[in-house]
Amino acid sequence: MRVGYVQMEPVFGNPRTNLVRARELLGRERADLWVLPELFNTGYVFASHHEVRELAEPVPDGPTTRSLVEVAQELRSCIVAGVAEWSDSRAYNAAVVVTPGGALPVYRKVHLFAEEKRWFAPGNTPFPVFEFGGAKVGVMICFDHFFPEAARTLGLRGAQIIAHPANLVLPGVAQRTMTTRALENRLFTATANRVGTEERGGTALRFTGLSQIVSPVGTLLASSPEEGEDVQVVDVDLSLATDKHINPWNDLYADRRPEFYV
Amino acid sequence: MRVGYVQMEPVFGNPRTNLVRARELLGRERADLWVLPELFNTGYVFASHHEVRELAEPVPDGPTTRSLVEVAQELRSCIVAGVAEWSDSRAYNAAVVVTPGGALPVYRKVHLFAEEKRWFAPGNTPFPVFEFGGAKVGVMICFDHFFPEAARTLGLRGAQIIAHPANLVLPGVAQRTMTTRALENRLFTATANRVGTEERGGTALRFTGLSQIVSPVGTLLASSPEEGEDVQVVDVDLSLATDKHINPWNDLYADRRPEFYV
Repeated sequence: MRVGYVQMEPVFGNPRTNLVRARELLGRERADLWVLPELFNTGYVFASHHEVRELAEPVPDGPTTRSLVEVAQELRSCIVAGVAEWSDSRAYNAAVVVTPGGALPVYRKVHLFAEEKRWFAPGNTPFPVFEFGGAKVGVMICFDHFFPEAARTLGLRGAQIIAHPANLVLPGVAQRTMTTRALENRLFTATANRVGTEERGGTALRFTGLSQIVSPVGTLLASSPEEGEDVQVVDVDLSLATDKHINPWNDLYADRRPEFYV
Repeated sequence: MRVGYVQMEPVFGNPRTNLVRARELLGRERADLWVLPELFNTGYVFASHHEVRELAEPVPDGPTTRSLVEVAQELRSCIVAGVAEWSDSRAYNAAVVVTPGGALPVYRKVHLFAEEKRWFAPGNTPFPVFEFGGAKVGVMICFDHFFPEAARTLGLRGAQIIAHPANLVLPGVAQRTMTTRALENRLFTATANRVGTEERGGTALRFTGLSQIVSPVGTLLASSPEEGEDVQVVDVDLSLATDKHINPWNDLYADRRPEFYV
C-alpha cells in the first residue's frame, strides 16, 4: 500500500482556497491512503464563537466533505482530513475519512488541546478503525498523541496504521511520542502536520511541520522540514503490523497483563 | 532530592563480587535515591534452571538484600536494585527497594523479555509506589518500558519518579520510550542499564549502557555512554512532577477519558 501525507499551510477562514491547495498538493504524487493536517480547511486560531459557527460544516453533507469525496473518487484514494464539524449546535475538531465510495463515520477529537476547549466540544465518538483496500486504518488527531491509550485503543482494535492529522506547535514532541506509539503497538503511523504562523485575536502560533511516517520498529520512513509545504509518499507492507511479535518469545499484545494496570 | 544511578558490568554468577563493585561505584557520589541495574547481583544470561536456583536469593532475608540494607544505612540513601529472587520454589526477576530502615516489599517484573520466560515466573506483585524522604518513587524493570500501562499505572498511583533497573540490549529503544513515559506522565525517570557482554550456553548478549535520567518535560538530565561503567547524579525538584498541567488548559491526568479507552 502506498501511504502519503500533505504538509500544508492553510489560510485561516478560507475553506475553498485550502481545498484547492490541498488538491494541488495531492496531485503531486500517487497514494492509496492520504493524510491531511488537522483543521486543514479552516485554519486553527479562532477568535470568536461566531467564527467557529461560520466555518464549521456538517459532515458528510457540508461542502468540504462533499468536495473531498470527489477528490477521493478522482484519485481513487482514501483521504483522512481534519475539519471543523458542526453538529447538533456544537462544533467539533473532527477528522473525516473519505473514500471513492463516500464518507465514513466522523471521528471527533477526544483530547482537546489548550484553547481548543473554548471553541470545540470534546469528542464523543470512539477511536475508529476502518478498512480500505484491505488495510486497517486507525484515526486520531494531534494532541491524542500525548495519551498512550489513544494509539493503544486503535492498535487493539486492529489498526495496522494510524492516520494522524495534526496542528503541532511544539517541535520534536509528537515526533518522539508517535515513534513510541509505533514501537509499543508495532504499527505504522502517519502524522500530517501543518506549517506557517497564525496571529489572530491576540494569539500567535507557529506550526512546526516535521510531518512523518514511522514503521512498526520505529524507523522514520518519511519526514518533512519544520517549515514549508511538502508531500511525501512511501510504499509500506501493512502486514508487518499484524503480527505483534518482536522476537519468538514476546508478542506485544499477548504479553499485556491488564490485571496489573490501572 | 539527589537522584543517581550506577551503570555497571556485573560478573555472571558472583553476587559477592558484584555487590562489592556496586558499593565502590555508589561511593563515588552522594545521592538520596540510587538505582542499580536489573539482576545486578547475578548477571543476566542463565544457562540452566540449576544456575537460577543456585543464584536466586530470598528477599529480604538473602545475603544480597541484607548487604544492600547495610549499604543504605551507611550511605543514608534509598537503593532500588534488580536481583534474582527465590520464593515459594520459584525464581523472579525482581527489584528490591532498601532504605536505612530496611527492605520494602519486593517488585517482581510483570513483563518478562525473551528467554527470561525460561528462567523466571511472571511477576505477581502490583507496580509499587513507595515514599522515601518525602518523594514518591515508582519501580518497574527493563522491558516494562515497552508497555505504556506500566509507567501510567505508577504515575496514576502518585509516582513522581520512576526507578527503572534495566539490562537493555537494543540501543536507543528504551531511551526513546522512557522519554515518552516521562513526557506523557509528567514525571522523572531514572534508567540504570548495565554494560558488557555475556556469552553463555550458546547465547551471546551485549548490553548497551546509555543509562539516563529524564525530566517531566522530556529533557535529558543525565546520560552515560554505550560502553563502560559510569555513575551519574542530579539534583531534581520532584514537586515538578506533582502538577500534571502542561499549560493552563491541559492537565494530563484530568484530561484522560477512560470511557474511550480499551
